Amino acid sequence: MSKGITSRNSDYSQWYNELVTKADLAEHSAVRGCMVIKPYGYAIWEKMQATLDKMFKDTGHSNAYFPLFIPKSFFSKEASHVEGFATECAVVTHYRLKNDGNGNIVVDEEAKLEEELIVRPTSETIIWNTYKGWVQSYRDLPILVNQWANVVRWEMRTRLFLRTAEFLWQEGHTAHATQQEAVEESERMMNVYADFVENWLALPVVKGVKTENERFAGAVNTYCIEALMQDGKALQAGTSHFLGQNFAKAFDVKFTSKEGKLDYVWATSWGVSTRLIGALIMAHSDDAGLVLPPKLAPIQVVIVPIYKTDEEKAKIDILADTLIAELKQKGISYKYDDRDTQRPGFKFAEWELKGVPVRIAVGSRDMEQGTVELARRDTQNKETVSQVGLVDRIAALLEEMQQSIYNKALAFRTENTVEVNSYDEFKRILDEKPGFVLAHWDGTSETEKRVKDETKATIRCIPLDSKEEPGICIFTGKPSKQRVLFARAY
Amino acid sequence: MSKGITSRNSDYSQWYNELVTKADLAEHSAVRGCMVIKPYGYAIWEKMQATLDKMFKDTGHSNAYFPLFIPKSFFSKEASHVEGFATECAVVTHYRLKNDGNGNIVVDEEAKLEEELIVRPTSETIIWNTYKGWVQSYRDLPILVNQWANVVRWEMRTRLFLRTAEFLWQEGHTAHATQQEAVEESERMMNVYADFVENWLALPVVKGVKTENERFAGAVNTYCIEALMQDGKALQAGTSHFLGQNFAKAFDVKFTSKEGKLDYVWATSWGVSTRLIGALIMAHSDDAGLVLPPKLAPIQVVIVPIYKTDEEKAKIDILADTLIAELKQKGISYKYDDRDTQRPGFKFAEWELKGVPVRIAVGSRDMEQGTVELARRDTQNKETVSQVGLVDRIAALLEEMQQSIYNKALAFRTENTVEVNSYDEFKRILDEKPGFVLAHWDGTSETEKRVKDETKATIRCIPLDSKEEPGICIFTGKPSKQRVLFARAY
Repeated sequence: MSKGITSRNSDYSQWYNELVTKADLAEHSAVRGCMVIKPYGYAIWEKMQATLDKMFKDTGHSNAYFPLFIPKSFFSKEASHVEGFATECAVVTHYRLKNDGNGNIVVDEEAKLEEELIVRPTSETIIWNTYKGWVQSYRDLPILVNQWANVVRWEMRTRLFLRTAEFLWQEGHTAHATQQEAVEESERMMNVYADFVENWLALPVVKGVKTENERFAGAVNTYCIEALMQDGKALQAGTSHFLGQNFAKAFDVKFTSKEGKLDYVWATSWGVSTRLIGALIMAHSDDAGLVLPPKLAPIQVVIVPIYKTDEEKAKIDILADTLIAELKQKGISYKYDDRDTQRPGFKFAEWELKGVPVRIAVGSRDMEQGTVELARRDTQNKETVSQVGLVDRIAALLEEMQQSIYNKALAFRTENTVEVNSYDEFKRILDEKPGFVLAHWDGTSETEKRVKDETKATIRCIPLDSKEEPGICIFTGKPSKQRVLFARAY
Repeated sequence: MSKGITSRNSDYSQWYNELVTKADLAEHSAVRGCMVIKPYGYAIWEKMQATLDKMFKDTGHSNAYFPLFIPKSFFSKEASHVEGFATECAVVTHYRLKNDGNGNIVVDEEAKLEEELIVRPTSETIIWNTYKGWVQSYRDLPILVNQWANVVRWEMRTRLFLRTAEFLWQEGHTAHATQQEAVEESERMMNVYADFVENWLALPVVKGVKTENERFAGAVNTYCIEALMQDGKALQAGTSHFLGQNFAKAFDVKFTSKEGKLDYVWATSWGVSTRLIGALIMAHSDDAGLVLPPKLAPIQVVIVPIYKTDEEKAKIDILADTLIAELKQKGISYKYDDRDTQRPGFKFAEWELKGVPVRIAVGSRDMEQGTVELARRDTQNKETVSQVGLVDRIAALLEEMQQSIYNKALAFRTENTVEVNSYDEFKRILDEKPGFVLAHWDGTSETEKRVKDETKATIRCIPLDSKEEPGICIFTGKPSKQRVLFARAY
C-alpha cells in the first residue's frame, strides 16, 4: 500500500481525508456518517480523555452516566432546544425484530413504542429531569457532574472526526444556587478547555462569547474557544454554556435557599469531542503526514535498527534494551521497530506519516562510533548525536518540540489575523488570504446573517480580551463598540 | 431522609434495591429499563475500568471504537446470532423530528431510513464487517482490540446493574490465524476476568464452559466465570467466547497464510459489564449497607471529627491535615467529613451505608490521649488506637480487609456448594439450602431443559478444574463422566 498523500497546497480537503485514513486514525463505517476510530486514533483520544478527566476532577467534578435515550416529550420541553436539534435526531420507534416466516428479519410492528425515544444528541433534557429528584435545598447544590458518552446528530454532510453522525465527547452539566456561581463555572470550564488546547494540543485559541445566532440551543450565553486551521478556516474547539434557569424551568427544578426562599436552579453545560482530533491534525500536520505534539503522541519515540547481519542486529538490540529501560523510567512511550519484513526507508515514511515526534536510527557505523541519528518530526531535522546522555536529550527535545509546535501555530495565526475596516477589504481578505478577520459589527443578527449569506463568513466569537474601540460596522456603517472575530469555519 | 434499609433475611431482593438507591449508586431513569449511574456508583465503575484496561493492555490489546448502530442486514448474517438477539433490539427507523404545525413535535415520516438500524446489543457483526477491510494476510493478524461502550438489550424485567436495557461494558474482539491461538486467547481472557474478580472484587469464581443451551449466540464455545451471591443464587460475572470461524464466514473475512493458503480468520469475543457492580453488592454487603473491598472503594478512609467548640475543631483539623498528607502520599483515598450540618451518628451511618472500609473518629478526649477510634466496615469492629503510626496501620488494615472479605465469600461458597447424587436430593437442596449444586448430567440439552423447567436451576458451567468421575445423571440415570455446576441464577 502506498503511503504517499496529496499535498496540502494541491487539495487541503483531500490531504486531510487521506491523512486520517492512511495514518490509521479512523475510517468510514458501513453505517452512514458513523466512523470507526482505529486503535492509533483512539490512543490519541485516550490521552485527551485522561488529561481532561484529571482537569475536571481537579476542578471538583465527578463523572456519572445518564441514559442514551431521551423520551420525545422531554425533548420538546425547552422550546429553543428542540428547535435546535429536532432536524437531526435518530429516532427509536420499535424494540423487537422478528422472522417474517420467509426467512427475513423484519421489524416487529407489534413491538412499537408508545412514545418514541431520541438517541441523545446532547443530554440537558434527560439530566435536568433527573436533577429534579436530586435537588431540594441549597445543601444539595452545587451539582458538578460530567459524563463521557457517545452522542448522535444526524448530519447530512459528514467528515471523519470533524462532523460525524455519532461522535464521542464529554458533557459537563452543573447546577448552582446563584446566577453568579453558574456564570463563574461556565467561564472556568472555558478556561480549562483553553488551557488544555493550548498546552496539550499546542494550539492557540481565542476565547470569546458567541453571538445570539451561534449560541447553543437553550443557552443564555455560550463561551467558546476558536482555533485557526492551516487553510485559514476557523474551528470551534470547545464550548461552555451558561444556561440560566431555562432547563430548571422546563423541568421544574427548584430549591430552597439558605434564606428559605424557593427559586429555580441555575445551570451550565460544557463539552469537547473527538472533533479535537480533527483540529489537532488540521493545525499541525504536513505533507509527510501527522505532526503530533509530544504530550498527545501515543508513541513518542521510535527506534529503527539498520543492519545486514544477525550479529549487527544483536549489537543494536543491546543498545535498544538500554535505551528502552531509560525511556520507561522517564515515562516516555516508545516503539522498537525491528520488523524484518520492512526496509528502513519504509519504516521512516510510516512513522513520519503517523507523526511520531522523535526517530532514532542506529546502523553499524553508529555502533562503532557510539552515535545514533536523531530526527525530529516537526522540522524533519536530522543530526548525529552521541549515545551517551541520549535519553536526557530526547526528554528535553520532546519538551522543546511541544513548545515549538505551539509557537509555529501561534505565528501562523498572528500572520493570518487581520483587522479590516471596510466590507470590500473584508471580502478581499477572505478570498485572498483567509484567516481570522477582526471587524466592527453593528450587533444585530440581521447583519450577521447577511454577511454570512454573502461571504460564508460567520462571527466566530466576540473575543473576551478585545479592547473597547469605537468604530462603524463594515456592513451597515452603524456604530460599534468593539471588533468581533469573523472567519469561514468548519 | 431515613437511611435504614430492609434486612437481607426479611427480603433479599428489596434489600438490594434499597441499598443501590440509598447508597447513591444508581437509580431508575424516566426511560423504561435504563438506569442513571450516580457519581458514587460511577466511581466504582471507573476503578473497575482502570484496572481492567491495564490488564487488557498488559495482555497486548488496544482500544478502538465502532459505531453504535448496526444495519439490520448485518445482524441477520450469522443465523444463531440474530436468533439470540432479535427479540430485544432497539430499532432506529427515522432520522428527523418536525413540528406538526400545531405545536407538537412528531416524527417526520419523510425521514424514514431505507434500512433500519439496530442499536448494538453487542458488536460482533459491525466489527467483523470492519475487520474484512483490515485483514489480507497473516501479517495483519492477530487483531487484539477492545471497546468500552454502551449497549442496549430490550429486557422486559430489569433490575439496577444486574439487568438493564442499556448498560456499560467492554467487549474484546480478536482475530487470529489459527484455531489454537483463538482458543488460547479466549481462555486467557477468562483467566484475566477470574483474576480481576477474585483479586479486586474479592469474590471467588468457578471457571468453566457453558453448555450448548447457555452458549453465546454465535459462539463455538463460551468460557465463563460464575460467582455465588449471599442468597445462594449464582451470577455470571464474565464470559469469553471462542467464535470459531462463524463470523469470518458470515462476513467473508479471509487471509493468506504464511504458506500462501487462503483461509477464514478465527475469532474470539469477551466482555464484562456494569453488572459486576451488582455482583459486588450482592456478594459482600450487609444490613448496614455496602461492604466494599478496599481496592475498589472510591473512598477508602473517612475521618469524622467530634467536637463541641471551634477550638476543639481547630485542634482536630491539625491532626486531620497531617493524616491527609500521609494518606495522599500512600495513595489512599480519603474524605474528611467535617460538615457542620450533620451529627456524628448520622455521618457514621451514612459512611457505613456507603461502604467506606475504614472510619477514623476523633474527639476531644482522643486528642488529649493521642488516640483515635478506628472502625473497620466489614466486621464493624472498633478499637482505640494511637495516633502514632496510624496511617501505616490503616494501609495494613486495608490489605487485610481485602483478603478477609475474599475469605469470607470463599467460606460462604464452600459452605453452600454441595454434591448431590439423586434428583430428590437436588430439589431438596435447591429449596432448603440454595447454592451451587454439583451433580451428574447426561450431557443432553433435553435433560438440561427439563431440569430447568422443573426446578428453575440451570447448568452454570462445566467446571474446568473438575476431576473426571464416572457417575449417573441425576435426572435420566444415563452415564456421566463428570459433575457439572447447577444453580438458580440471576
